[in-house]
Amino acid sequence: MSEFNLIRRYFTRATPSAVLGVGDDAALLSVRAGHELAISTDMLVSGTHFFPNANPFLLGHKTLAVNLSDLAAMGATPRWATLALSLPQIDEPWLAEFSRGFFALAEQHGVELVGGDTTRGALTLSVSILGEVPAGMALRREGAQIGDEIWLSGAVGAAALALAHLQGKLILSAEQFSVCAACLHQPQPRIALGQALRGIAHSAIDISDGLLADLGHILQRSGVGATLNFAALSQAVLPLAAADAAHRQRCILAGGDDYELCFTAPVCHRTQLQEIGDKLGISMILIGKIDSKLGCRVLNAEGAIMNIEEQGYDHFA
Amino acid sequence: MSEFNLIRRYFTRATPSAVLGVGDDAALLSVRAGHELAISTDMLVSGTHFFPNANPFLLGHKTLAVNLSDLAAMGATPRWATLALSLPQIDEPWLAEFSRGFFALAEQHGVELVGGDTTRGALTLSVSILGEVPAGMALRREGAQIGDEIWLSGAVGAAALALAHLQGKLILSAEQFSVCAACLHQPQPRIALGQALRGIAHSAIDISDGLLADLGHILQRSGVGATLNFAALSQAVLPLAAADAAHRQRCILAGGDDYELCFTAPVCHRTQLQEIGDKLGISMILIGKIDSKLGCRVLNAEGAIMNIEEQGYDHFA
Repeated sequence: MSEFNLIRRYFTRATPSAVLGVGDDAALLSVRAGHELAISTDMLVSGTHFFPNANPFLLGHKTLAVNLSDLAAMGATPRWATLALSLPQIDEPWLAEFSRGFFALAEQHGVELVGGDTTRGALTLSVSILGEVPAGMALRREGAQIGDEIWLSGAVGAAALALAHLQGKLILSAEQFSVCAACLHQPQPRIALGQALRGIAHSAIDISDGLLADLGHILQRSGVGATLNFAALSQAVLPLAAADAAHRQRCILAGGDDYELCFTAPVCHRTQLQEIGDKLGISMILIGKIDSKLGCRVLNAEGAIMNIEEQGYDHFA
Repeated sequence: MSEFNLIRRYFTRATPSAVLGVGDDAALLSVRAGHELAISTDMLVSGTHFFPNANPFLLGHKTLAVNLSDLAAMGATPRWATLALSLPQIDEPWLAEFSRGFFALAEQHGVELVGGDTTRGALTLSVSILGEVPAGMALRREGAQIGDEIWLSGAVGAAALALAHLQGKLILSAEQFSVCAACLHQPQPRIALGQALRGIAHSAIDISDGLLADLGHILQRSGVGATLNFAALSQAVLPLAAADAAHRQRCILAGGDDYELCFTAPVCHRTQLQEIGDKLGISMILIGKIDSKLGCRVLNAEGAIMNIEEQGYDHFA
């Protein structure tokens, strides 16, 4: 099979919302008047981000999901994507499942694949995702204000637990693993929530590298600090009973791969935020407060500052 | 050095033309009214597209150049780029040179790096390039018409000759290699030419996989055929005396990595095209004609159809 037939068979779908889709030197897109274009690029590498024998359907899902999550954190509406992939060889059943997983999530969010590249090399996947957001309305990392409350959508730590189980670092029951593995392999990007937060949240980020690391980006860019309530955070967690206290703490605070949104909003929006969560079926958990003292402190149930060693994931640290 | 410091030190420059540049979940861009966004994504893999010990400055140049060439082929004005790179380890001198090469070309074309990703893995580089083109004015592959003349900018075959020399398949003199190596390592994307061709060319493509393969895309999408004049093509070539006739033919017709533009235009624009070439200092060579008989024929100096075996490069054929 040639490179061109591969693209035609597995990666060419109708792109009615593009001026010009797959098959030319570039795709042509028309951004709606009054909107800004949001663009984000991620790269997933076999052996670094996923196991070489990862289920290709789930990998197709996750490759797009981690990018959609970046648009969610901006409050943007996803529109288009490009996909560059490097493959050691052509494995048609693998490609069929990968593209099925990719397009299933793409269709769910109205995303059209408009271009990309296929080449030979170690299995590597790179998506650029494009979305639209009304001009001036994007959620940024830099807008957190002193007095803002800090919120988290859904649960954190489950993906890290599933990974620890797969790495033999702890043992989950079949039922626990099933719940956690879904978080690890099929994260659901919080697109609808991100859009609902426009005009309400002062700042937002998605949790990919771990809660403390990602919240740290908000704090740094906003020039503020935070105090978190570990008891509140613990509520937000899936079956962590399986882990010992230290591991539990690490998964919650620094686990990563969660793709939930962490955002800050003024106190006056508390009720409205709970209503948004109810409407979308997402638990909205108030986990702390923005304050003027730089850095991030995590308080235990007794109100004492906890000793935190691990902040999150860094590919080169 | 952490992933974040790496991005800050080597890949963060001012982005005055972006609403929001590097450092948030996504970049925010504002596309000018009356313009379409052109986007293209390419992936370069060590060992497939370049030698593992490639000069990092030249690699930085080429990584961006091959993407800019796609925008040139659309007649678009480059504006922004994202860069995803996977690195086996942090090598600061390498990163400093790579980013210097990348940004030198970016500045030359007014391109701002607005986002990307860095991760650990085999050396792999993926750029998404974004440009603007007045709505409805982009050069597409599908517009070639019967009777159009087929043009080529600059020379083809030199990059393939340099590669053949590096692979020990032939020997160039030091002077010949120097000329050819510049074509291989520092291709100059034909951005100004692409823009000048708007409203004149009926179709265009850049030569990355080899002239016959790339012209074949124009023919296929336009539903037409072509007859090329090999003698005219041979004029367009750098020091091919070093190669035997068969190798010479292969480099010209199927060499690839040239990043020249191949385009079609009606006969009435012949003089205007020569003037554009003179103005830009690019030799504009008339290499053949679009006709109704599907497929592509290459005629030798005696007007006989040549026997062509190799059409161009395919990563998986």
